[in-house]
Amino acid sequence: MTGDELAWKVAEAMRAREGRDVQAGMTLEAAREGYARVALDVGAGMLNGHGTVHGGMIFMLADTAFAYASNSRNEAAVAQQVSIVFVAAGAAGERLVAEAVEQAMQGRSGVYQVTVRGGDDRVIAIFQGLARLIGKKILD
Amino acid sequence: MTGDELAWKVAEAMRAREGRDVQAGMTLEAAREGYARVALDVGAGMLNGHGTVHGGMIFMLADTAFAYASNSRNEAAVAQQVSIVFVAAGAAGERLVAEAVEQAMQGRSGVYQVTVRGGDDRVIAIFQGLARLIGKKILD
Amino acid sequence: MTGDELAWKVAEAMRAREGRDVQAGMTLEAAREGYARVALDVGAGMLNGHGTVHGGMIFMLADTAFAYASNSRNEAAVAQQVSIVFVAAGAAGERLVAEAVEQAMQGRSGVYQVTVRGGDDRVIAIFQGLARLIGKKILD
Amino acid sequence: MTGDELAWKVAEAMRAREGRDVQAGMTLEAAREGYARVALDVGAGMLNGHGTVHGGMIFMLADTAFAYASNSRNEAAVAQQVSIVFVAAGAAGERLVAEAVEQAMQGRSGVYQVTVRGGDDRVIAIFQGLARLIGKKILD
Repeated sequence: MTGDELAWKVAEAMRAREGRDVQAGMTLEAAREGYARVALDVGAGMLNGHGTVHGGMIFMLADTAFAYASNSRNEAAVAQQVSIVFVAAGAAGERLVAEAVEQAMQGRSGVYQVTVRGGDDRVIAIFQGLARLIGKKILD
Repeated sequence: MTGDELAWKVAEAMRAREGRDVQAGMTLEAAREGYARVALDVGAGMLNGHGTVHGGMIFMLADTAFAYASNSRNEAAVAQQVSIVFVAAGAAGERLVAEAVEQAMQGRSGVYQVTVRGGDDRVIAIFQGLARLIGKKILD
Repeated sequence: MTGDELAWKVAEAMRAREGRDVQAGMTLEAAREGYARVALDVGAGMLNGHGTVHGGMIFMLADTAFAYASNSRNEAAVAQQVSIVFVAAGAAGERLVAEAVEQAMQGRSGVYQVTVRGGDDRVIAIFQGLARLIGKKILD
Repeated sequence: MTGDELAWKVAEAMRAREGRDVQAGMTLEAAREGYARVALDVGAGMLNGHGTVHGGMIFMLADTAFAYASNSRNEAAVAQQVSIVFVAAGAAGERLVAEAVEQAMQGRSGVYQVTVRGGDDRVIAIFQGLARLIGKKILD
């Protein structure tokens, strides 16, 4: 099994264990070593008081891609810290795509950048996450 | 109407306009000028692949308190940037409480700290949000 | 020796080992368990291209207070991540004061908020730091 | 004059106006539209109490590259918020290089990632900065 095949199996296993609420509207599109791409079809129930996509939903999408990328080598990792900048608003009915790319891995710490884009490819949010390996496996 | 009464009315109005998915399990407990407190009853559908509360749900909770606190003077504000540190895991069935407190307000920018605590009062996450006033009102 | 006396001794020891450039203009004002206060007298050499205090100097000041607060129990800690929001500009000749306060300590991780204020007490910057204990001591 | 030539002139002009302390040890290596690269030769005076490069110096280096990249179109920009992750320690005598790359520009807001590397190309720190255009020019 290649590293990329392992990454896909890990992401599928994590997906299978996740709760329903955190999966609503999301599709796993790709998972490779240190990389993941997840899409979200924005439903009417995901809007904030201003009528645009709730920041919490944008974060959930980015965080999900971050989780698959940071666990992709079958070494369990947990999020320690995240910083997110909201660049543009998302709309109901839009399909948002989050792409997580590993920036650095040193000791037990990994740094990932996740870019969330809208249907027209504009940047919606940029997310930087710090993950920590906890010494466990996802798959036996 | 006092500033605190206005803050409550604004939070209720925002709540009424929010989508269902972003309200799941949440209760607005308090809203005052520059302050808000929101609780989340963690359901089984809110867990991540490790069996603890998904970071996206913790963020959603904190972000909701941040939104009510930063819009509390009936001046519409949007989130520009957030940094969150995950300190401890949350469990299914637990009631998490997020408390947002204004740290600074200068020109059109406001800074808020949101602390998320578990049922036993331990700190789950610390969230720092930067909001920007956009020159609109929430209530007419 | 009380915890607060130890914190002061640790801060003095760290100060003695620091390089000259990072000490320029700074005064240690207070150090207690989980807390430190440091002042910076802004010199003409500390300005940016816009004529206000360089963000790097404001960060250096806040980071210094963060270091003393996070090492205050004589357990060596290093910065893992910091988020800083710049709220207002600082001016040449001004005395800036940074106050670091522990927000949470869990396992090997500590979270600190550092507020930097100007001579008139306005908020200049708000800094949130995540420190990690590395299993060493500062003082024998 | 091309956009890249303008970026170089702007960076040189900003450099000429900066204070001496913030320039210590730094060399402007490249400036293009939405991009800048700055090097720092680490002096003995730039170390922290642990004997490695002070986080404030690493930030100063990254922040300087961020400033040149975000002002590169001759539209004055100021830092609103920065998040930095410290990945590895830097040593005295080492030459650190910070590379700032624009990630998004929307309205008055720009997002930049700055990667700081050591002499052996290992990642020292990853910095994400949010800048805001203030409606002024650097060069007339």
